[in-house]
Amino acid sequence: MSTQSFSKKGNDTKAALIRSGMALMTTYGYLSSNLESILKQVGVPKGSFYYYFKSKEDFGRAIIASYDSFFSHKLDKHLTDSLISSPLARIKAFYEDAKQGMAKYDFNRGCLIGELIQEESLLPEGYAQLLEQILQNWQAKLEHCLLQAQQCGELSSAVNCKALAEFFWIGWEGAVTRSKLIKKSAPLDLFIQLFLDKIIQ
Amino acid sequence: MSTQSFSKKGNDTKAALIRSGMALMTTYGYLSSNLESILKQVGVPKGSFYYYFKSKEDFGRAIIASYDSFFSHKLDKHLTDSLISSPLARIKAFYEDAKQGMAKYDFNRGCLIGELIQEESLLPEGYAQLLEQILQNWQAKLEHCLLQAQQCGELSSAVNCKALAEFFWIGWEGAVTRSKLIKKSAPLDLFIQLFLDKIIQ
Repeated sequence: MSTQSFSKKGNDTKAALIRSGMALMTTYGYLSSNLESILKQVGVPKGSFYYYFKSKEDFGRAIIASYDSFFSHKLDKHLTDSLISSPLARIKAFYEDAKQGMAKYDFNRGCLIGELIQEESLLPEGYAQLLEQILQNWQAKLEHCLLQAQQCGELSSAVNCKALAEFFWIGWEGAVTRSKLIKKSAPLDLFIQLFLDKIIQ
Repeated sequence: MSTQSFSKKGNDTKAALIRSGMALMTTYGYLSSNLESILKQVGVPKGSFYYYFKSKEDFGRAIIASYDSFFSHKLDKHLTDSLISSPLARIKAFYEDAKQGMAKYDFNRGCLIGELIQEESLLPEGYAQLLEQILQNWQAKLEHCLLQAQQCGELSSAVNCKALAEFFWIGWEGAVTRSKLIKKSAPLDLFIQLFLDKIIQ
């Protein structure tokens, strides 16, 4: 096997570990996600795990970064979609996509960041700041979209878009958690409907 | 010691176990709340614990019932406060009280129900339904207050008070979680401000 093949196999294993860890942590959170069951699922011995990650804490950070990248991409895809002229309709498109994402796993998986913030008191040092920073980055993306809604007259210029974007993520994480509890999209549907109908108008 | 004294001591011990368990579970959730540390804090041997509760699951149900009773009382106190003529001002009074409750413990303790719903996939059978039922009861209390706001003209009669009350609890739990993450009241403040200014008006 060439060095390149070795390296490719290594990258594949690392990616598979992150994927498996992400599936578990979006369902059970950080603390209850058992390293052994992830290794078993991917078919990697414990010794090899430490070739890729220093510790569970290090592994968790890689999962968070990967989730943030995936979710930021999803947000950008919808919130800057030039095929949809209405910025508010782009927010609705994001919601439709996120809802389908939850339905795909029968509402058993939530938002990784939302799962983890609930565990803040037991997470490794620095995680809370990292999670808050990610939420602020997502907020900035939504704020940008709301500013565009103001520019095209869909949203009153009197609205504070920064505060509104913050409000959205506070409520959105609550809606995802509630949908996961009752295994239905109703909380997400209600949240987006009232957000767009009442808050925005 | 008379039978009555024995019984009083027993009730005190049971109440102390519930209080200690509630403090731990509002901070760490159900799964990470260690029975041993609760027993140590209250000074009760493990054998005696099983005199009061069949299992951790049974103990958890007693804690949930106690929290629900405490919180429902808090809600009733504010939302039906006849000294405050404006129903919307009563909602604000509830928020002020809840915020002080979090500040008292340096934003380390959240809402027990909010903590537990995040763990739904790992909770004992029947807990998810119980938690959802409690949230619906709290929603009904708020809906009643919103209906009164409609009756006295503070809120448009076109508003669906049931949906609005549901929206409130979705967002409120999100705000409590976020305040616990950043150890500040800002998310609670923003949520109530926009809820009352934007949603209601």
